[in-house]
Parts: sequence; C-alpha cells; structure tokens
Amino acid sequence: MRKAYLDNISATALLPEIREAMMPYLGELFGNPSSLHDWGDVAREAVNAARSQVAGLIGASAGEIIFTGSGSESNNLAIKGLALAQQNKGKHILTSAIEHFSVLHSAKTLEKWGFELDSIPVDKYGLVDPDQVKKRIRKDTVLVSVMHANSEVGTIEPIAEIARVTREAGVILHTDAVATVGTIPVNVAELGVDALSLAGNQLYGPKGIAALWVRKGVRVIPLIDGGIQEDGRRAGTENVPAIVGMGKAAEMAAGSIPSRTKRIQKLRNCLLAQLPTVIENLLVTGHPRHRLPGNASFCVRFIEGEAMLMLLNSQGVAVTSGSACTSRALKASHVLIAMGISHEVAQGSILFSFGINNTPEDVDRVLEVLPLVVDRLRQMSPLYSKFIKEGKGGV
Amino acid sequence: MRKAYLDNISATALLPEIREAMMPYLGELFGNPSSLHDWGDVAREAVNAARSQVAGLIGASAGEIIFTGSGSESNNLAIKGLALAQQNKGKHILTSAIEHFSVLHSAKTLEKWGFELDSIPVDKYGLVDPDQVKKRIRKDTVLVSVMHANSEVGTIEPIAEIARVTREAGVILHTDAVATVGTIPVNVAELGVDALSLAGNQLYGPKGIAALWVRKGVRVIPLIDGGIQEDGRRAGTENVPAIVGMGKAAEMAAGSIPSRTKRIQKLRNCLLAQLPTVIENLLVTGHPRHRLPGNASFCVRFIEGEAMLMLLNSQGVAVTSGSACTSRALKASHVLIAMGISHEVAQGSILFSFGINNTPEDVDRVLEVLPLVVDRLRQMSPLYSKFIKEGKGGV
Repeated sequence: MRKAYLDNISATALLPEIREAMMPYLGELFGNPSSLHDWGDVAREAVNAARSQVAGLIGASAGEIIFTGSGSESNNLAIKGLALAQQNKGKHILTSAIEHFSVLHSAKTLEKWGFELDSIPVDKYGLVDPDQVKKRIRKDTVLVSVMHANSEVGTIEPIAEIARVTREAGVILHTDAVATVGTIPVNVAELGVDALSLAGNQLYGPKGIAALWVRKGVRVIPLIDGGIQEDGRRAGTENVPAIVGMGKAAEMAAGSIPSRTKRIQKLRNCLLAQLPTVIENLLVTGHPRHRLPGNASFCVRFIEGEAMLMLLNSQGVAVTSGSACTSRALKASHVLIAMGISHEVAQGSILFSFGINNTPEDVDRVLEVLPLVVDRLRQMSPLYSKFIKEGKGGV
Repeated sequence: MRKAYLDNISATALLPEIREAMMPYLGELFGNPSSLHDWGDVAREAVNAARSQVAGLIGASAGEIIFTGSGSESNNLAIKGLALAQQNKGKHILTSAIEHFSVLHSAKTLEKWGFELDSIPVDKYGLVDPDQVKKRIRKDTVLVSVMHANSEVGTIEPIAEIARVTREAGVILHTDAVATVGTIPVNVAELGVDALSLAGNQLYGPKGIAALWVRKGVRVIPLIDGGIQEDGRRAGTENVPAIVGMGKAAEMAAGSIPSRTKRIQKLRNCLLAQLPTVIENLLVTGHPRHRLPGNASFCVRFIEGEAMLMLLNSQGVAVTSGSACTSRALKASHVLIAMGISHEVAQGSILFSFGINNTPEDVDRVLEVLPLVVDRLRQMSPLYSKFIKEGKGGV
C-alpha cells in the first residue's frame, strides 16, 4: 500500500542534513554550555551560532532569542511572562478567539491571577479585523496576542496592521508564528511585533526545541526559575543538540522559503481544485488567499472528521482533524466554532497539511482514497440518510 | 596532552546504546504522539514504553511520570505546581538552604505570590536534620523540599527520615533527585516522598529531557498550559527522541547501579586519599560517608576556584567550581556558605565529579597536574604571601 503522510502541521520529518549537524553534539561534544572549560566552550559556541542562525531567519538579533522546549512553552512564556512583567501598568489582555490552546489556557491562568481577559472575534475566514483590536484596547491593556497563521485553517492574519494599532496604543503585541516561521517569510521588523514564538519542528528541525523572540528592551518574567541560562530568562541546561538542529534548520529555511512555498502550494492547490469534483457537500475552511501554502482544511458534511481520519489511516494516508494537541480530546474545534461554523459541520473537519517531502503522487492517493472513505461513512451516517430522505439535495 | 573529563555533574557523554535507541525517532519514526494515525501510534507507544522504563527505575507507576525539558523545569513544576495546588490549605513552604537554584528561585517566586518561605539549615557536612524540619512545620505548611543529594558537595540527605516527619504532619515532600537517580539506588516507596525530580543526562542519557514523578492522587498545577499531553500536566509536543533516550538510559541504569557505584567510588576514593599528600591547606567538603560515589569536592585555601579550574583546563582537565548553572555568575557557593564555610575558603572550592567513562589514568593525571596548578596560583596569591609572612604555617 502506498503511504502518504499529509500531517506536516503535527510533525515533520527531520531533514538528514539537520540530523547530521546534530550528531557531534549527541556524541563527543557533550559539554554543558555553562561550564568554564573546553567542553563547555565548544557547546557554548554551538549554542551561540545556532542563536544567530535562528535570529537571522526572522531578522532579529541573537540576544533577543530565548530557546525553550516547545512552541507551547514559548507561548506560555510570552503570555504569562510579558503580562506579569507589566502588571503594574494594568491587568487587561486580549487574545484572538482562535489562538492555540497554549495561548488561550495561559491567558486563563492569568485570569485566575487577577487579570482580565477579552477575546477578539474572527470573521468567517478566521481573519482578525485590526479595528476589532483597536476597539477592545483599554487604558489598562498590557498585552495583545494574535497568531501569525492559524495551523488548523491556515488563515494568515494581518499582523503588521494589528501592530500599527498596538504600537499606537503603546501595548505589547505577541504573535504565535509557530505555523509560519520556515514556511513563509517572517521578519519581526516588518511585522512590527514585540514578541514572536517559533518552533524547531515546523522548520523541519528536531522536536523538543523552540524559541521566543522578545524585542530588546521588553521585559519578560521567566516561567522556569533557576540558573542564569538564556540571559536569566529560562533556566535549565541547554538542549545543545536540539538547539544546534534548530539553528541548522533556520539556516536551511532562510534560503529556501520561496522554493518551498511554491512547491508545497502547487500540491495543495491541486488537491483543493480537484476535491469538489469528487466529494459533494464540502466546505473549504480558512481564507481563500491569505493562507498557509501547505494547508488544505475543509469540512465534509454529515460525517465525523475522526472517522474519516481513521479510515484514511487504514489506507496509509495520515491527516489530522484539528490540532494534534487536542486531537485526543475529540471536541469540535474552537477555531471553526469561532468562525461561525455550526457544531454539526465542524464535526466533519479534516486537515491535510503538505510539507517539503510530499509529491504529486500523494495528491493522487488522496483523490483515490478520500471519495471512497466519504462514501462508506455516509452510507453509515443517520444524518446523511435524514438529509437524503428530506430531499435536500441530489447528492 | 592527555585529557581528563571530570565534570560529570555538569554534563555526561551520551552512551552509544542510548544514541542508537534514539536514532529511529530522529529518522523515519517522526510522528507526533498525539496524532490519531500510524505515525502517531508508533511515537505514542515509544513514549509509553519509555515512561514505563523511567518509572521502573524508581519503583513508580508509569502514569505518575511527567516528562519535562530539564531538571530545572521538573523542580519548577514541583515547587510551584504542588504549592499552588494546595494554596487553599496554606501558604507556607520549607526548603533546605542548599537546594539547587531552580528550587530556591521557584520558592522566591512563590513568595512574590503571597507564600511564606522558611529555610531549613544544614550542618557542616551539608546534612539536614529531620528534627529541624519538624520544628519548622506549621499548620499552614503545604510543601517541604529537600534534595536527595547535593550535586556540589555530594552529601546524601536522610530523605526517608524526613519523609517520616512530613508524613506524620500531613505535608507533601518533594525531593530533587537529579544528582542521585542513575547513580545510587532510588526507590520512591523506600524514600517515602510524594514527588521527585530526575534528569536524563545524569543517567548518561540525552540533554533536554527530565521528569517529575508525582505520587498518584497528588495534584500538581501545570507550569506549561495548553494541550492535554502528559495527562494535562505539561503541554507541548513530546520530545520523542529524547524521551526514548531517557527510557533507554533508565533501563540501562536499572541493572548496573551497583557496578557503576563501585567503579566510580573507587576512583573518587583514590583521588581523595592521595590529595592531602600532594596539596596542603585542603578542606574536603561534604559528608565523609553519606556522599555521592563520584563526588570529590574540596576547597583549597588562598586561591580562587575559578583560577584553578582555568589552569586545569589549560592542562586538559575539566572540572567545575560549583553548579554549572551558576558557574558563569562567579559567586561563592550558597551551599558552602550554608555549611558554615567562610567566604574566603569557599572561594577556593573545586569539584571533581567522576562518571562511568573515567579511568585510573584520569586520577593520575589530576594528581600530576593539580599540585602544579596550586603551587603556581599560590605564588601569585597575596593572601598566601600574607599567610606565610605571618608565619601561620610552614607550607
């Protein structure tokens, strides 16, 4: 059976060149970067080089990069750390309704600590309107967090415009760019944000490593207290091999984003163009143009996304029905609900995410398998029987 | 020049068997454990297997293990997470004076959040007296944290006796066992603790991975909010290769601790026995018997530990003058000060830590080089000149 991995938003395969770059640090270059001897020096230099590579990818300075253990940790450090650092100025924060749970739940934790929380709505495409941000900013607002792109529906937010609003109001803006850095061009100066989260694995680098960029001069309270690593902003021995891998991944991404985008987008467009010809009652979710190049997300009416996912898996096709972080919770996506999609339709959501290892054959395989899966599930679906009986369409 | 790495407390070399076990997960087995497809299943099973291996090493159940990104993160999660989970019962916590900064600074953060903090003193060997714990426990005490062994001076604390005190008082006891798990036998039931931190690299496993064991039924508030990974206690995509490595490291340690201890202790004892014959004005720090097998820590009077460290490094010998996490801060160790050692003497502290890769030739190399280093530094030391001039000894 031909396998097709189309879940690059959940995990990507480490590029061989990146693994090679990491290997010496899983071998004899095992020193602790804090150690004041040759073994430590080698490790410290490797971490510094990686810091420059990561900074370079987003147009930042090396000293502004804080390495963390995951995109979720970066988002927690941003939301909690930036809000707590400014709590004397005010205790009101804003996030969009479609943020990753690591942002939303961090904000909920702040609420328990006495902060006030407001949600910025999105339109049917998942877009945040900068005017809606402006409307909600109060005198005591200290932090706004809007993601660069939503990993589930692919919508790319107008961050630069939102940044003009927050800058004018003197409020700090964080963006979760885990889904965009390495996939589309990201430059912190052009975006105009104050803090930005990114993760190694979305750069085809290793798991277990991510970073938070914080503009020089912006204070952040550490999430992990202890030693003086990461300039006192994140304690704990540095994960040297993973940091080296993320650096290499950033370096490799820096030169190849346009070609990656072109290649991935072509495959995605090919799938999206042909899908409606083989499956009826399909709703493509997310913005038609402002969209991650690899994202093909849609809802198939009358059936469950998880059921599709599992039958597709039995045919060797790997996809997700939402965020991998919540896939085991089996709830309707908060992102789709915020976009005004009904629970019933949202249940049928599915997400194909293309990466640099995908080929046209993967698209063919999906077009071969998916219609069969949908047909089979619809035959078992009471909702679909009812729909047919009521004569609502000649599907 | 013959090199001798004697800083195993700061970082250890990954064992080749462990690296081999990790490799498939840095290769084609790249799935996200949360994904509901074959790639995810393979990753999830690997994480579960590693969880059982880690639990097995300390006599725990797999469900009680929370993987984190560092020993520091484990300690932060323990101190903040356990205290916050119980804040309705009381807001008083106790830590020993010689804890790692990830414990002490987490406690300081809790102090900012309205907790009261008391320090448990240690004797001249760095030992905590269980009666001193008992004396300080109040009705509103909700957490006690005493490390299993101090990584700087090697002293092993009477945790089982302290656990009897805390259990009687109905107070939760956490122990930072980063320096002991994998080095000496550690069994959570025998220790009688409620939570225990351990780290992969001290098991000769990878960096970037650690764990917190929390007894079933004991609640902990997450440090990192978001997805439902680690049973909702630590969000973020799992660092699968590192988790697999830590599992393998735990499995390898489980069968070999007695032989590791014997081998390492022999080398350490050999060094400690011969040192006084080649260097005068030497103070061995830590407990003479209740001591980590690989630890040889001492202070050399009239000279700076950092200066010794650097000259030793120039001769290919790697050591540390304290905790690697603070080595770049160049302050006198809070551990030595708490043990009643004067600032002057504490400045001359140095720590040789043996690991399973060390050999008798490493001891010979130290005995060859260290006296020369000490002589050279003493010749430059005004303190030493003064000492000689005042005729305080015929050194």
